[in-house]
Amino acid sequence: MISVVILGAGNVAHHLYKAFSASKAVKVKQWYNRHLKTIETFKNEVAITDNLSELTKADIYIIAVSDDAITDLSKRLPFEDRLVVHTSGSATAYDLDKKNRRGVFYPLQTFSKAADIDFSQVPICLESLRKTDYALLKSVATAITTITKRVNSDQRAALHLAAVFVNNFTNQLYRVAHEITEAEGAEFDLLKPLIIETANKVQDLSPFKAQTGPAKRNDKKTIKKHLKLLKSEHHKDLYKLLTALIQDTHGR
Amino acid sequence: MISVVILGAGNVAHHLYKAFSASKAVKVKQWYNRHLKTIETFKNEVAITDNLSELTKADIYIIAVSDDAITDLSKRLPFEDRLVVHTSGSATAYDLDKKNRRGVFYPLQTFSKAADIDFSQVPICLESLRKTDYALLKSVATAITTITKRVNSDQRAALHLAAVFVNNFTNQLYRVAHEITEAEGAEFDLLKPLIIETANKVQDLSPFKAQTGPAKRNDKKTIKKHLKLLKSEHHKDLYKLLTALIQDTHGR
Repeated sequence: MISVVILGAGNVAHHLYKAFSASKAVKVKQWYNRHLKTIETFKNEVAITDNLSELTKADIYIIAVSDDAITDLSKRLPFEDRLVVHTSGSATAYDLDKKNRRGVFYPLQTFSKAADIDFSQVPICLESLRKTDYALLKSVATAITTITKRVNSDQRAALHLAAVFVNNFTNQLYRVAHEITEAEGAEFDLLKPLIIETANKVQDLSPFKAQTGPAKRNDKKTIKKHLKLLKSEHHKDLYKLLTALIQDTHGR
Repeated sequence: MISVVILGAGNVAHHLYKAFSASKAVKVKQWYNRHLKTIETFKNEVAITDNLSELTKADIYIIAVSDDAITDLSKRLPFEDRLVVHTSGSATAYDLDKKNRRGVFYPLQTFSKAADIDFSQVPICLESLRKTDYALLKSVATAITTITKRVNSDQRAALHLAAVFVNNFTNQLYRVAHEITEAEGAEFDLLKPLIIETANKVQDLSPFKAQTGPAKRNDKKTIKKHLKLLKSEHHKDLYKLLTALIQDTHGR
């Protein structure tokens, strides 16, 4: 049984704790957070602490705190030469203090406290600065997911940036659609099956092949009609930019 | 049993034919296309024709052709006072020739020949210019879907425009993500579960509430890092515009 200490109590930390708790190969030996209150409800299941000097010995320490806090927390760990990883897509392994063996354990998914997630379908991107640590890191990951991948810092940075496009920015497009429909008293709900199908389509087809619509067809009449309908200047700019981008991609 | 004639042989026509064929309440009595070859494989299942003067009598005629061809085709129909509808989200009922009773039968989904679709989950937006035609129109729709909605022309135009954002433009964001990951030799596939989860999230949560990410948090460090990573000027512009839009929406 691999022993893990989780540090932090945000969404990622909570989902990791839950996934590890349900696994057979990994045991969460201790959960640290600077505010004990956030994790107090778990005190009958796992040892909790808000005191770094009380940290117990474990095979791996997973730091799941905000990017800005990673370096400082790693410096304050009261031990050396143990395996310490963070869960950030944006930080590098070098952001961890070098007194310990360093790595990254980046689950590429959006987590919220409310929504349950099937962790077995969450890709975990792994990196270890020491080759010999990789096997352990991989064992910890495969305890909770079927999708693991060795990813270096540049690749992880690209994935994190790409994730902003497919998650944060895509969600903002949903928001724009919400505003457009609401303004005419039409139901945003009617778009929900289309939203799902659009996401499903690129599971098997490349986004290049899945592209359809007036921009790709260069249907000028519809494009003009749409630009006239849009009231917000920002939305008009967005429409124009994305239309131009589609036409660049598809050689119009 | 309601009898239907389908006119046209694009993706929507094919999917409608398939859905009606599987239904108990509607029978496709005839299928017209100007090129017989496209629908020839169906000749043992349904009467096919490329000759408008051969059109048979039916309860409803569904014109599923490209927007530009709707008006002309409706003018050339050799009968009057029958119920004729088109399937376009962009055209209005008035684009149909007024010699017949007019309406719209707009399935709000993306159709491709390759991908099978569960039509029972496709919202069909309905409009009839004559009140008395609505019941029939609704019966035809409920024969193949569980989601029907009365939608006027302005609402339909808004839905069609919003669909461009959640489908065509969202797919282009997937494409940008594909380019970003490929450029670093990272796997686009790792983003697929995130793409699904992003779409799933807004099934229950409003896009406003589902928004996360560096733009919403106003995480300037990450935004700066991302802009530096982006090589294409178009992608930079897109990143900036969507970031500004998220910050406007969330009061930053």
